[in-house]
Amino acid sequence: MRVGFVGLGAMGCAIAARLLGAGYEVLGWNRSPEPCAKLAAEGLQMVSSLGAMAPCDVILSMLADDKAVTSVLLEGGLLATLRPGSVHINMATVSVECARDMAARHADRGVAYIASPVLGRPDAAAEGRLHLLVAGAKEAVDRVHPLLAAIGQRIWPFGQNPEAANVVKIATNLTLACAIEAMGEGTHLVAGYGVPGEAYLEMLAGTLFAAPAYKVYGPMIAHKRFTPPGFRVQLGLKDVKLALQAGEAARVPLPFAGVLRDNFLDCLAHGEGDLDWSALVEAGARRAGQ
Amino acid sequence: MRVGFVGLGAMGCAIAARLLGAGYEVLGWNRSPEPCAKLAAEGLQMVSSLGAMAPCDVILSMLADDKAVTSVLLEGGLLATLRPGSVHINMATVSVECARDMAARHADRGVAYIASPVLGRPDAAAEGRLHLLVAGAKEAVDRVHPLLAAIGQRIWPFGQNPEAANVVKIATNLTLACAIEAMGEGTHLVAGYGVPGEAYLEMLAGTLFAAPAYKVYGPMIAHKRFTPPGFRVQLGLKDVKLALQAGEAARVPLPFAGVLRDNFLDCLAHGEGDLDWSALVEAGARRAGQ
Amino acid sequence: MRVGFVGLGAMGCAIAARLLGAGYEVLGWNRSPEPCAKLAAEGLQMVSSLGAMAPCDVILSMLADDKAVTSVLLEGGLLATLRPGSVHINMATVSVECARDMAARHADRGVAYIASPVLGRPDAAAEGRLHLLVAGAKEAVDRVHPLLAAIGQRIWPFGQNPEAANVVKIATNLTLACAIEAMGEGTHLVAGYGVPGEAYLEMLAGTLFAAPAYKVYGPMIAHKRFTPPGFRVQLGLKDVKLALQAGEAARVPLPFAGVLRDNFLDCLAHGEGDLDWSALVEAGARRAGQ
Amino acid sequence: MRVGFVGLGAMGCAIAARLLGAGYEVLGWNRSPEPCAKLAAEGLQMVSSLGAMAPCDVILSMLADDKAVTSVLLEGGLLATLRPGSVHINMATVSVECARDMAARHADRGVAYIASPVLGRPDAAAEGRLHLLVAGAKEAVDRVHPLLAAIGQRIWPFGQNPEAANVVKIATNLTLACAIEAMGEGTHLVAGYGVPGEAYLEMLAGTLFAAPAYKVYGPMIAHKRFTPPGFRVQLGLKDVKLALQAGEAARVPLPFAGVLRDNFLDCLAHGEGDLDWSALVEAGARRAGQ
Repeated sequence: MRVGFVGLGAMGCAIAARLLGAGYEVLGWNRSPEPCAKLAAEGLQMVSSLGAMAPCDVILSMLADDKAVTSVLLEGGLLATLRPGSVHINMATVSVECARDMAARHADRGVAYIASPVLGRPDAAAEGRLHLLVAGAKEAVDRVHPLLAAIGQRIWPFGQNPEAANVVKIATNLTLACAIEAMGEGTHLVAGYGVPGEAYLEMLAGTLFAAPAYKVYGPMIAHKRFTPPGFRVQLGLKDVKLALQAGEAARVPLPFAGVLRDNFLDCLAHGEGDLDWSALVEAGARRAGQ
Repeated sequence: MRVGFVGLGAMGCAIAARLLGAGYEVLGWNRSPEPCAKLAAEGLQMVSSLGAMAPCDVILSMLADDKAVTSVLLEGGLLATLRPGSVHINMATVSVECARDMAARHADRGVAYIASPVLGRPDAAAEGRLHLLVAGAKEAVDRVHPLLAAIGQRIWPFGQNPEAANVVKIATNLTLACAIEAMGEGTHLVAGYGVPGEAYLEMLAGTLFAAPAYKVYGPMIAHKRFTPPGFRVQLGLKDVKLALQAGEAARVPLPFAGVLRDNFLDCLAHGEGDLDWSALVEAGARRAGQ
Repeated sequence: MRVGFVGLGAMGCAIAARLLGAGYEVLGWNRSPEPCAKLAAEGLQMVSSLGAMAPCDVILSMLADDKAVTSVLLEGGLLATLRPGSVHINMATVSVECARDMAARHADRGVAYIASPVLGRPDAAAEGRLHLLVAGAKEAVDRVHPLLAAIGQRIWPFGQNPEAANVVKIATNLTLACAIEAMGEGTHLVAGYGVPGEAYLEMLAGTLFAAPAYKVYGPMIAHKRFTPPGFRVQLGLKDVKLALQAGEAARVPLPFAGVLRDNFLDCLAHGEGDLDWSALVEAGARRAGQ
Repeated sequence: MRVGFVGLGAMGCAIAARLLGAGYEVLGWNRSPEPCAKLAAEGLQMVSSLGAMAPCDVILSMLADDKAVTSVLLEGGLLATLRPGSVHINMATVSVECARDMAARHADRGVAYIASPVLGRPDAAAEGRLHLLVAGAKEAVDRVHPLLAAIGQRIWPFGQNPEAANVVKIATNLTLACAIEAMGEGTHLVAGYGVPGEAYLEMLAGTLFAAPAYKVYGPMIAHKRFTPPGFRVQLGLKDVKLALQAGEAARVPLPFAGVLRDNFLDCLAHGEGDLDWSALVEAGARRAGQ
């Protein structure tokens, strides 16, 4: 099985390394050349044009957003290059609209299309600890199962309709942003009575909220440690907008998402777009004069 | 050390049983007589008047709300009964205003006042797995430490000002209600694309949100299992109002709390006041026509 | 017909002057003595105790809020003083709860109770241009009609249940605060594209929104003219809370009111509590970095 | 001066009739042929292709939205047809983004571009009572002034940047939607205390809110008279989204707009998309169980 990997940023490199480690032959392409030189030593064969992906049986892509996906697949010609009968696993967090469009275009070409957005950061990816949210035709998903198993610690199946995995990823990111805002509101509330955020958030993450979301973001919020960013405020806003947009198309009011949108804008208006998205709580702190 | 226990509902009984099990001599009082007959066998000595608590060195109370606390301590005369030098541990979830008032009144009487609201349900209390949020004068807290240790798995100290523990409890309940609403919004969003809530919420609770809050409420939301109630919608609204009220006094805007308030009212307007408070998500489901 | 007037602030004086001008004999009482000395020249007979109001056939009161009403009527003994068969016209903006309690207590005493909150400021009162929102027993309202006609330009009847007039006043003030926030949001939006608020708000008030609410507050917002206050931010918050509280009791979600509450708190947290309540828009301006 | 008019729906016909009445020679084009046959009798010369607009000195267009504008101007070739030195007056309510794009494209072609969205309905247009929100190069605006004066009762100038007029229109529609929601919240609140919406809304529109917005929509809300629609719920949502989108680009949080968005979605989820947009209040009524 020949594998192609498109989009070798920090996350892409970590995932490609897992595939190489599992013994797959991997062709790599990235917009800017040689982003992960060290993978060459592990066997990654970089190609300079998307056309060189033609012989691949399976293509994985880890691209930034709708625009990058469209740019590479359509304008860049990747989709036109893929062989009928091959499989494309799109790991990007894209809009439901983009997912739907891609599914249709792949079907037209006879290429199986699987959406597999991931949960986890590059360090988790390097250790095979990602969670994969997977949706696509059963036959295709079964075929690439060993490959997915080499990447993540667990595969969460969401049916045969690719967009389902994308909307699940969008909803998960929304839930994460909600948890950040909720930690912020609670922290500002107790701070109004002299309780240090650190004590409060440590208690939360040690009791009812003893989960990665609160353990990771609690200390960042308590110590206002918003650099270096793991995921930027700008991207947080982008993802909340994906949720609002998906909600609009399905006629689902999302009042928490509306609050988050305004708070992210507040952050942008105060020059915080490149901070970690947990800086969302700064909007509330400002409002409380804290 | 003679201990009095006032308020023997399900939670009070479970805590009193822990104290008896640890060898304390315990006098018990409850508004309605003999609520927990089986504790008599374990040594609980029920008294019929609050005045009989006079000889106690430490009094614990587990009452429903501000009104019950005021009723028992002031109108009922418990505070006037307590000896100077004794300690009162108030475990109720009360308003910051009530906490402040109680602290002042106890100080006037020379009775040490400790706020110790708890996290956990009666079954956790029975097994000594409660978390105690404790604030009060250091000397008094030190003195009752063995007793608190017999009750809970961990003591989380929040300083010497009793109201601090209450506002922390209020903020924690707010965070819990936020998590419920966030689960609801995500569930309705993915349902708009055909993804079953069960699959989505199981994934959440198995990944970034692997914490009691999501593990307990996720399945209840997924299966709309809102009876029997662990904690009623009405009480959820009450607690969100405590948060809003505490926020007002400290001038802290709480936009998520505002959304929760409206959704709880929506539930009340639809006859759901006696369901479990996770029925909060029904407001959103209705709005989305789901 | 002997008339008593309780509460002679700016508004009370202006209304009392109308009554004197219409030929009524008026006894006046105010907490702080002689607030409106010039009314003595017009015939106002100040009394130094509420007990002196006993002979009055009709009592009007214009007090600040629930607390002042309770303080004067109950603790101060005014209600106990009133003769069975007399009429009390309460012009304050009070809570529905207070209105209900007062109605019951007056009924117990055999005193007719009319709620008649007003729309308009002291200058409008002086010219008889107030609008009166009136609710109370028909027979009593008919009896005092000439007196009400001397005060306001128009009587808007809201039935026989006094609290109805109060909830209408509360809803009207909510609508006014909503108009201010809406003017603010629009102004900040167009300012983001270089359009001066003045040009925008003048257009609004000259077209679809050519009403006093927009004509009065538009220029204040455009020129950030928040002093001297006509009605303070603090009172704006108080009135929004009356709306939220009335909504809670009737199980009516009020999402706009929730937004207003947070923005008023934002103003308080920034030291703007004593500005005119149209300074509400400053919260939004801050958030947009404008 | 030869005038072209593109987009002859109800509003376009009414405006074109004003121009004919003022003595202008007018060429007309519409996607579906002969929508306003009666204008032929008044001198309107219908053309069957956009190319036939080439000789016009001034082109007015009244199209539905961004998509229709792009479709006619770009794909349909109207822009390529216009002579350098001619003027295009775009009366549509379009996004700021579309306005910006159009301004740039017209500049490239040497065609003056004026944005002139309007306030008013077709009946107002027929009587020359529209308000015109105008922005564009001063020289061009001066040149077409007589023509604009024939259309509307007043021209409100918003500078030389066309998008300014569009954002003002967007903000005005947002303010209108806010007024509708505010009327709804107040009506539901007073209804919770037995006050008929009719009495409440009539009072509002007769006092502080005596403006067209409240006089027009108040009775529609009071009597739930949502058909025939003057402006549909769907379009209301579209316009609120234009506001949110413009706010995002300028980093202006708009919390009221967020609430409106959710309530419009609630309406759509309940099959009310084709009702008049004042049916927005039905979302609140449902939530209150009214």
